[in-house]
Amino acid sequence: MEAQTWIAMISIFTAGITIAIGSIGSALGEGRAVASALTSLAQQPDSASTITRTLFVGLAMVESTAIYCFVVSMIVLFANPFWNHFLEAAGG
Amino acid sequence: MEAQTWIAMISIFTAGITIAIGSIGSALGEGRAVASALTSLAQQPDSASTITRTLFVGLAMVESTAIYCFVVSMIVLFANPFWNHFLEAAGG
Amino acid sequence: MEAQTWIAMISIFTAGITIAIGSIGSALGEGRAVASALTSLAQQPDSASTITRTLFVGLAMVESTAIYCFVVSMIVLFANPFWNHFLEAAGG
Amino acid sequence: MEAQTWIAMISIFTAGITIAIGSIGSALGEGRAVASALTSLAQQPDSASTITRTLFVGLAMVESTAIYCFVVSMIVLFANPFWNHFLEAAGG
Amino acid sequence: MEAQTWIAMISIFTAGITIAIGSIGSALGEGRAVASALTSLAQQPDSASTITRTLFVGLAMVESTAIYCFVVSMIVLFANPFWNHFLEAAGG
Amino acid sequence: MEAQTWIAMISIFTAGITIAIGSIGSALGEGRAVASALTSLAQQPDSASTITRTLFVGLAMVESTAIYCFVVSMIVLFANPFWNHFLEAAGG
Amino acid sequence: MEAQTWIAMISIFTAGITIAIGSIGSALGEGRAVASALTSLAQQPDSASTITRTLFVGLAMVESTAIYCFVVSMIVLFANPFWNHFLEAAGG
Amino acid sequence: MEAQTWIAMISIFTAGITIAIGSIGSALGEGRAVASALTSLAQQPDSASTITRTLFVGLAMVESTAIYCFVVSMIVLFANPFWNHFLEAAGG
Amino acid sequence: MEAQTWIAMISIFTAGITIAIGSIGSALGEGRAVASALTSLAQQPDSASTITRTLFVGLAMVESTAIYCFVVSMIVLFANPFWNHFLEAAGG
Amino acid sequence: MEAQTWIAMISIFTAGITIAIGSIGSALGEGRAVASALTSLAQQPDSASTITRTLFVGLAMVESTAIYCFVVSMIVLFANPFWNHFLEAAGG
Amino acid sequence: MEAQTWIAMISIFTAGITIAIGSIGSALGEGRAVASALTSLAQQPDSASTITRTLFVGLAMVESTAIYCFVVSMIVLFANPFWNHFLEAAGG
Amino acid sequence: MEAQTWIAMISIFTAGITIAIGSIGSALGEGRAVASALTSLAQQPDSASTITRTLFVGLAMVESTAIYCFVVSMIVLFANPFWNHFLEAAGG
Amino acid sequence: MEAQTWIAMISIFTAGITIAIGSIGSALGEGRAVASALTSLAQQPDSASTITRTLFVGLAMVESTAIYCFVVSMIVLFANPFWNHFLEAAGG
Amino acid sequence: MEAQTWIAMISIFTAGITIAIGSIGSALGEGRAVASALTSLAQQPDSASTITRTLFVGLAMVESTAIYCFVVSMIVLFANPFWNHFLEAAGG
Repeated sequence: MEAQTWIAMISIFTAGITIAIGSIGSALGEGRAVASALTSLAQQPDSASTITRTLFVGLAMVESTAIYCFVVSMIVLFANPFWNHFLEAAGG
Repeated sequence: MEAQTWIAMISIFTAGITIAIGSIGSALGEGRAVASALTSLAQQPDSASTITRTLFVGLAMVESTAIYCFVVSMIVLFANPFWNHFLEAAGG
Repeated sequence: MEAQTWIAMISIFTAGITIAIGSIGSALGEGRAVASALTSLAQQPDSASTITRTLFVGLAMVESTAIYCFVVSMIVLFANPFWNHFLEAAGG
Repeated sequence: MEAQTWIAMISIFTAGITIAIGSIGSALGEGRAVASALTSLAQQPDSASTITRTLFVGLAMVESTAIYCFVVSMIVLFANPFWNHFLEAAGG
Repeated sequence: MEAQTWIAMISIFTAGITIAIGSIGSALGEGRAVASALTSLAQQPDSASTITRTLFVGLAMVESTAIYCFVVSMIVLFANPFWNHFLEAAGG
Repeated sequence: MEAQTWIAMISIFTAGITIAIGSIGSALGEGRAVASALTSLAQQPDSASTITRTLFVGLAMVESTAIYCFVVSMIVLFANPFWNHFLEAAGG
Repeated sequence: MEAQTWIAMISIFTAGITIAIGSIGSALGEGRAVASALTSLAQQPDSASTITRTLFVGLAMVESTAIYCFVVSMIVLFANPFWNHFLEAAGG
Repeated sequence: MEAQTWIAMISIFTAGITIAIGSIGSALGEGRAVASALTSLAQQPDSASTITRTLFVGLAMVESTAIYCFVVSMIVLFANPFWNHFLEAAGG
Repeated sequence: MEAQTWIAMISIFTAGITIAIGSIGSALGEGRAVASALTSLAQQPDSASTITRTLFVGLAMVESTAIYCFVVSMIVLFANPFWNHFLEAAGG
Repeated sequence: MEAQTWIAMISIFTAGITIAIGSIGSALGEGRAVASALTSLAQQPDSASTITRTLFVGLAMVESTAIYCFVVSMIVLFANPFWNHFLEAAGG
Repeated sequence: MEAQTWIAMISIFTAGITIAIGSIGSALGEGRAVASALTSLAQQPDSASTITRTLFVGLAMVESTAIYCFVVSMIVLFANPFWNHFLEAAGG
Repeated sequence: MEAQTWIAMISIFTAGITIAIGSIGSALGEGRAVASALTSLAQQPDSASTITRTLFVGLAMVESTAIYCFVVSMIVLFANPFWNHFLEAAGG
Repeated sequence: MEAQTWIAMISIFTAGITIAIGSIGSALGEGRAVASALTSLAQQPDSASTITRTLFVGLAMVESTAIYCFVVSMIVLFANPFWNHFLEAAGG
Repeated sequence: MEAQTWIAMISIFTAGITIAIGSIGSALGEGRAVASALTSLAQQPDSASTITRTLFVGLAMVESTAIYCFVVSMIVLFANPFWNHFLEAAGG
């Protein structure tokens, strides 16, 4: 096989496995945070505004790690510098 | 085998394994959040509206990680840039 | 072997392993939610309607991740774009 | 080996491993739900009808993930589209 | 080796590994349900009939996942459609 | 090697590994059920007859999954349909 | 290598690994049951006879899964039907 | 294949797997910290300002480990010294 | 290599790995039983004789699974039927 | 391939995997420490200064292990003594 | 390589891995038993003699599984029957 | 490839993986110690000086295991005796 | 490669991996015993002498499993019977 | 490759992996012991001297397992008997 085929294959596989593995920790962490928020709301309904505000900031932080993975996955699929290099090399 | 066969094989396998692995964390995280919501509802029935609203926002956040995986899986199956490149190359 | 055989083999294996792995998290998450619902019902029988309604919404969310996997599995088996491409190529 | 042999081998293995892996999560989730139901029955015998009704709906949801796997396993064994294609190709 | 040997080997291995892996979750789930039933019986002896009835229904549900695996295992050993195809092909 | 050797090797290995893996879940599940029964007996000696009766039914259910594995293991060793086929083929 | 060597090698390895893996679950399950019996004896010394009787029945059930593995291990070492077949074939 | 192809392949795969594995610990650690913050807020609403301030500092520390991984991932994709060396060598 | 070398190699490796894996479960199970016995002794010193008697019976049961592995390990090293067969075959 | 290519490939992969694996423990440890700090702050608001000071020293210690990994990762990427040796050898 | 080299290599590796794996369970089990003994001593100082006597018997039982592994390890290193056979064969 | 290339490759990989794996246990252990220190400070503010002093000694002990790994990692990178030997051999 | 090289390689690797794996269980077991001793000392300072004496005997028992591994590791490095045999064979 | 290269490669890798794996258990065990010491100090400040003395003896015992690994690692790097043998053989 020529170089382009190998680059394409490893890019497809990497794009999938990156977001797949990267979403495990993020989903579990968010699930834990939400579960804790609900328990806290039931225990102290008066602090609902503080709790939900802290929850959303925390969820954003946890979600950020999943978004790092999604960004890398999208770069590998649509803005892959190595793929572009080989395309130019082939087209040059 | 020619290049198209390899790209197709790795795309099919990646599409499946991405959503398969990506759904584990998401399902467990949502299960935990729902379980916590039900316990909280039983403990503090008066805060039902706050609890269910927070639950749905939280579930949406957790579900988003599974949707990232689903999106990548669909891109790999139906809008695969590498596959399209090879199709054009073969058809050109 | 020719290309069609490889595509068929990887499609069959991917279809099976996708739903097999994808159902683990979903089943465990739903089991946890149901268990929590039953404990809550025993603790607060008066909120039965709120608890069961929240449970069903939550189960639907968790089930959705299993359904993503089932959809991908069915696409790979019955609407596989790569397989169709090779069939047309062979029949063309 | 010819194509039919490979398709048959991978189909047999996939059919077995799909239901084997798919039943783990389902059995554990149902075991947890049943255990929780029994504890709740002992704690609140008066709500027996609500608890058992919710339990059966929940068990049906959890069982559904195992049934997805069983359906894919049966499709692979008895209604395998790829196998049928090669049979027709060989018989054509 | 000819095709029949490969089909026979993969069938034997699949039959064993399917029921072996499939019985893990089922046995653990049933053990948990039985343990919970016994604790509930000791706590609320008056509800013995409700508890045992719910237990048996639950055990039947959990056992069903093991039976799915056993059925697939028996199909692979004694009613294997692929094996029959090759036998007919060889005998034809 | 000829076909018989491969069939014999895979049969021996499958027979062993099936009962080995299959006994893990069963033994752990039974250990948990027995442990729970003894705790319940110490807590509520008056319900001894109900507890032991439920325990034995439950142990029988859990043991059944190990017996499925043992049956498959014995079939593979002593009533292996594929082995018999090759013996007849060799003797025919 | 000839067939006898392969059969002997796989038989030796299977005999060892079967009882090795099969004893893990059994030993852990029995350890749990014994631990629970001792706790129960300390809590309710008056029920010592019922507890020890139930314990011995339970241990026998758990031990049975280890014995299944031991039986298969001994069959593979000393009454291996495939080995006997090849011995007869070689001696015939 | 020439050197550039190998370097490109290993760079793509490393970029993906680095951020994927690196985000697991970070997401779980942040989830735990946020969960603990919410519980503390419900327990001691008066210390809300101290708790949230400490939480944000802690989240920043935990996030830093994910950022290390993201930085290495970006370096490997866009500022890879080895890739640049081979490009210059090829262009020189 | 000739057959004797392969049989000797697999025998040595199997003898070691059998007792190594087989001792894990046994040691953990006995450790748990002894720990429980000591806690019970501290809680109910008057039942010391019953507790220690039950402990020794239980330890003997758990130890039996390790002894099964040791027996198989010794058989493989010193009374290996397959090795003896090849020795006789070589000496015959 | 020549030596430089191999050195470059293993350096890229090592740089990524070192910081990826090394950040898991660090992130989990810091998450635990922060969670404990928040619980302590809620329990004893008066000791806030002592708790946060001890927390920061502890976080610095835990972060140091991640920094060791980051340092090694950077050395491998930008100050790799083996790579420099081969560059000089190639340039000499 | 000749037979002696293979036997020596597998013997060295087996001797090491047997005692390495075999010591894990034993050390953990003893650690648990000792930990429980110390807790019991603190709780019931008057039963110190009974507790320490039971502890030593229990430790001896747990240690026995490690000693089985050590014995097999020593046999493989210094009294290896297969090695002796090949030495005699080579010297004969 | 010549010897130097292999030594360089294995040295780079070993340096990375040593500190990566070695930092997991250390970071988790320190995280646990810090968490415990913070809980203790909240519970017994008067013993702050003793607790922090003991904490720092303990952290130093735990950190020492990570430093062992870092030292070996640095030796392998910068003072590798085997690499120096081959350099001298090549230069001699 | 000649025999001596293989023996030397497997000996070096076995020596390292034996003590590495063997120290995991031992260190965890001792950590647990020490932790329990400290808790007991805080709970019952009057029994300090009994507790520390029992602790040291227990630590010695747990340490013994690590020492078994260290002894095997040293034997493999410095008193390896197989290595000596080949040295004599080479020197004879 | 000649013998020296192989010995050097396996020595470098063994030195790294030995201390890396060996430090996991040690760091976790020490972390647990330190955590327990701090909890005990907060609970019983009067026994501070006994607790810290016992802690240091215990830490020394746990650290000893890491030092065994470090010693083996250093022997393999700087006093490797097999390497010295081959150096002498090459220089002789």
